[in-house]
Amino acid sequence: MKLGIVIGQIIATRKDERLVGSKLLITQPIRPDGKPAGEPLVAVDSVGAGEGETVIYATGSVAARVMRDLSAPVDVAIIGIVDRVDCSAEKKR
Amino acid sequence: MKLGIVIGQIIATRKDERLVGSKLLITQPIRPDGKPAGEPLVAVDSVGAGEGETVIYATGSVAARVMRDLSAPVDVAIIGIVDRVDCSAEKKR
Amino acid sequence: MKLGIVIGQIIATRKDERLVGSKLLITQPIRPDGKPAGEPLVAVDSVGAGEGETVIYATGSVAARVMRDLSAPVDVAIIGIVDRVDCSAEKKR
Amino acid sequence: MKLGIVIGQIIATRKDERLVGSKLLITQPIRPDGKPAGEPLVAVDSVGAGEGETVIYATGSVAARVMRDLSAPVDVAIIGIVDRVDCSAEKKR
Amino acid sequence: MKLGIVIGQIIATRKDERLVGSKLLITQPIRPDGKPAGEPLVAVDSVGAGEGETVIYATGSVAARVMRDLSAPVDVAIIGIVDRVDCSAEKKR
Repeated sequence: MKLGIVIGQIIATRKDERLVGSKLLITQPIRPDGKPAGEPLVAVDSVGAGEGETVIYATGSVAARVMRDLSAPVDVAIIGIVDRVDCSAEKKR
Repeated sequence: MKLGIVIGQIIATRKDERLVGSKLLITQPIRPDGKPAGEPLVAVDSVGAGEGETVIYATGSVAARVMRDLSAPVDVAIIGIVDRVDCSAEKKR
Repeated sequence: MKLGIVIGQIIATRKDERLVGSKLLITQPIRPDGKPAGEPLVAVDSVGAGEGETVIYATGSVAARVMRDLSAPVDVAIIGIVDRVDCSAEKKR
Repeated sequence: MKLGIVIGQIIATRKDERLVGSKLLITQPIRPDGKPAGEPLVAVDSVGAGEGETVIYATGSVAARVMRDLSAPVDVAIIGIVDRVDCSAEKKR
Repeated sequence: MKLGIVIGQIIATRKDERLVGSKLLITQPIRPDGKPAGEPLVAVDSVGAGEGETVIYATGSVAARVMRDLSAPVDVAIIGIVDRVDCSAEKKR
């Protein structure tokens, strides 16, 4: 999994029917210190994440496991909302 | 998933028979602001996307889930057409 | 999928027995304009591709779907030979 | 698999219920010589790894195989703790 | 698949029990001309590869197909030992 921040949303009325009812959140990958790391992704949400929140997301075929329809063609899913990042080791470097 | 723009098409008469009848669209990955992000991919289309349209695509084994023949060797699929990108958080940066 | 050019072949007599009889083609990923994009891969061929040909290849677990033995440990497969790349949008940029 | 060092932990109370009870360890990918290689990941732990330890981790759908609930949406897992890295060939370069 | 050179080995006594008995070889990805291409990986060996040998490896879920226990959390496997790289096309460039 990786850390990200929800920075927006995609509106798409024409889409695979298995995605109907799922929010499509633009998620900026970040490092533990909050700095961006790579290009934004489009993730389905399974935990009620909202804009500005720091989240954990998974990619690849396991992402579809958060969908009601497990056969959905989904490859990025938000699976947790971060309360706290404990990363003392990084500070020591 | 990621955002992309359809920028062309591949014509290939000799191909895996499970791909016959599928359009192969050249898709340029983009960021939420529309700028290119990485190299173009070749995606199968499942939503009637056309050249110039902004789309959502999925990669990996889940992409084959949009095919009539679910056993097709397909790893990139367009799964939605974007109506609007709401990305206020990015503007604030 | 991505575009590539077949630039050579690997000879390997000691290999997983499920690969016996499959050609292992060195495939250089390319952009729609033919320029290289990243490092060469080793792909199994399922469509009779030869050196110098422009091909479409798939990666990940779906690649094994072109093998006679579907359980083969294969993650890159050539699935089509390109006749023509129509990429007008790129020229407009 | 890749080598990494555990550099911290993520606290997330709102998460997919299949992750409850799993530690989420921030893992910095490293090279055999210990230098960082890319951005930190969030891995589930299956071997009792702790902060500061050098570990082996796997990514993709196989990562979920370390979970008690095999259907968990998990794509990075620590699968071993490194005792020693024997990498003489690298020194010769 | 990709080409690599075995440059060492990982010793890890605490690991997922499905990995017990498998050698964990540090594998440096290379280009057809032998130059390094990216960071070293940790691969299980299925063909008796040894240090200094040029190999073909596969990544992702298909890698676990070389294991006796097919449910092992393994994502990189050496599947062949290279006898010869025929890459004339590259020389012409």
